[in-house]
Amino acid sequence: MEPIALDAMGGDHMPDAALDGAVVAAAEGLPVVLVGDEARLRAGLEARGASLPIRHADDVIGMADAASDVRRRRSSSVMVAMRLVKDGEASAAVSLGHSGATMAAALFVLGRLPGVERPGILATVPVKDGFAALIDVGANADCRPAHLQQFAVMGSVFARTMLGIPAPRVGLMSIGEEPEKGNELTVRTHELLRETPGIEFYGNVEGRDLFRGTTEVVVTDGFTGNVVLKLAEGEARELFSWVRDALRSDLRSKLGGLLVRPALRSIAARLDPAEYGAQPLLGVDGYAFIGHGSADARAVASAIRTAHRAVEGRLLEHVREGIAGLGEVPQPA
Amino acid sequence: MEPIALDAMGGDHMPDAALDGAVVAAAEGLPVVLVGDEARLRAGLEARGASLPIRHADDVIGMADAASDVRRRRSSSVMVAMRLVKDGEASAAVSLGHSGATMAAALFVLGRLPGVERPGILATVPVKDGFAALIDVGANADCRPAHLQQFAVMGSVFARTMLGIPAPRVGLMSIGEEPEKGNELTVRTHELLRETPGIEFYGNVEGRDLFRGTTEVVVTDGFTGNVVLKLAEGEARELFSWVRDALRSDLRSKLGGLLVRPALRSIAARLDPAEYGAQPLLGVDGYAFIGHGSADARAVASAIRTAHRAVEGRLLEHVREGIAGLGEVPQPA
Repeated sequence: MEPIALDAMGGDHMPDAALDGAVVAAAEGLPVVLVGDEARLRAGLEARGASLPIRHADDVIGMADAASDVRRRRSSSVMVAMRLVKDGEASAAVSLGHSGATMAAALFVLGRLPGVERPGILATVPVKDGFAALIDVGANADCRPAHLQQFAVMGSVFARTMLGIPAPRVGLMSIGEEPEKGNELTVRTHELLRETPGIEFYGNVEGRDLFRGTTEVVVTDGFTGNVVLKLAEGEARELFSWVRDALRSDLRSKLGGLLVRPALRSIAARLDPAEYGAQPLLGVDGYAFIGHGSADARAVASAIRTAHRAVEGRLLEHVREGIAGLGEVPQPA
Repeated sequence: MEPIALDAMGGDHMPDAALDGAVVAAAEGLPVVLVGDEARLRAGLEARGASLPIRHADDVIGMADAASDVRRRRSSSVMVAMRLVKDGEASAAVSLGHSGATMAAALFVLGRLPGVERPGILATVPVKDGFAALIDVGANADCRPAHLQQFAVMGSVFARTMLGIPAPRVGLMSIGEEPEKGNELTVRTHELLRETPGIEFYGNVEGRDLFRGTTEVVVTDGFTGNVVLKLAEGEARELFSWVRDALRSDLRSKLGGLLVRPALRSIAARLDPAEYGAQPLLGVDGYAFIGHGSADARAVASAIRTAHRAVEGRLLEHVREGIAGLGEVPQPA
């Protein structure tokens, strides 16, 4: 397998987090090529007593830059990483920098798969008995029903390929179970999903269904999905901080807190976004993964693992086939 | 003060939850009139050794009925409760039945306040250091910027009057802090809120800001708000069930669990929607409160308390004044 191209410059803790994470991943036998300022990366590797291939990129898209900057800043690390994938020198690109820029770079360099109007970002959310695939979590703030239909197919393929669920059920995020409940977008999308081949459409789901794991795939527009994802992560973090505070409130709670700490820690770990590291941008013609700008070394290592698993599982080919299957049904304007 | 008219029939646990809740509220000195099947309510009160005024209603809108049924089913309990408010015989109406029907009945009987295009449902969400007012949580699935502007004003009035916050900051729920981040609705609304008098516009907030309590008021369309509210409630419930399971996983955790139980219980209580009971429908010309169909006696009692506090605080008059202040600025089409 060609190595995973890691944008080692974009992100809050770069290049250190990238260097540390890549060294961990490489030690696990996962091939990585670092993309970024060669001198800095070389020095960073030497300081760690490690050796990894580097591809030089003399520019980096900062968190405050515009996503569209990628079009003229071709030597930015995220653009160089995408080009390595395009040219077959890397199997996947991973960036934990500017999400919009990563998406723009992927679209610009790799292009869309045939039949996909809008690639979507898929997030894996820990739920009751496993994981749910939520798509789109931010690539497309305004969507049409056909976009959500494509998300439904791509999400189903992801759940089969990456989560090992043979017949994942697809829920449409709405505000009532009945088909006619929701906004204009969901009411029209509900109709369309009912007649979509190759997916197990469950019907509408509500906010409370996400963590219950009512369906393995949840489809929504990128605005709602992004709000949902950030709320879910933020609420978990906040509630755990309330629990931590409560376990320091008096002697009895402190003593109990010492005893329950290992049990609570396993839950906190399950909810930690760093465990998952990066989210695939589905619908582009290549493997592209987008991570939190705040990613640490652990998140970088998980991102590389996730990308590696996707390539091994031939996720891209399965998405291509799934979307091709949509060509058989008439699509609304 | 005229009594609070309680729809004692609509809801999953009615009339028992209504009877028990009303008896508790009455014992606290809050005047209540029960609306529903007189014979059943009379028998229920007798069985409880209690005496409360009853207004007969021989019909009830079931959870499976259409909201629009209220137009022809004038003798349904929710319609009778609203008419008591309209006629000045009750100060507020509270229904824990069919939300859509309660909203439709309030609009139909009480009408809208001048200047309000779309009344919105406001939910009080427990956050880091207090509460946040989230509006709209489900009355309007598709919104225009002017609707969100009105929600911002009404939410600010609510936070001042009911939460005691002198200068509540208003956040616009979006998917990035920058004004240009979001969907078409939020980008246009951001512009409008910047020029809205009488509110402290903070700017965009994200999903993670809700529980952090970044702003005391969070404005959003009814689709996003409903998804957010149900996710927030569902996630809290789910995480606490994970914690409960973890505290039964082995002997050490069980022992610790016994010690930390009181501390955790206080957090769980804070997150319990039954503590708040009912949400005001803001923008109608009268006091109308909408609760969970699953409300128990505790939720009913809190709903009555909330309604009573709103009337005492003259929430409606303050909302009327706040909205009147909007008349001074030009509004977009």
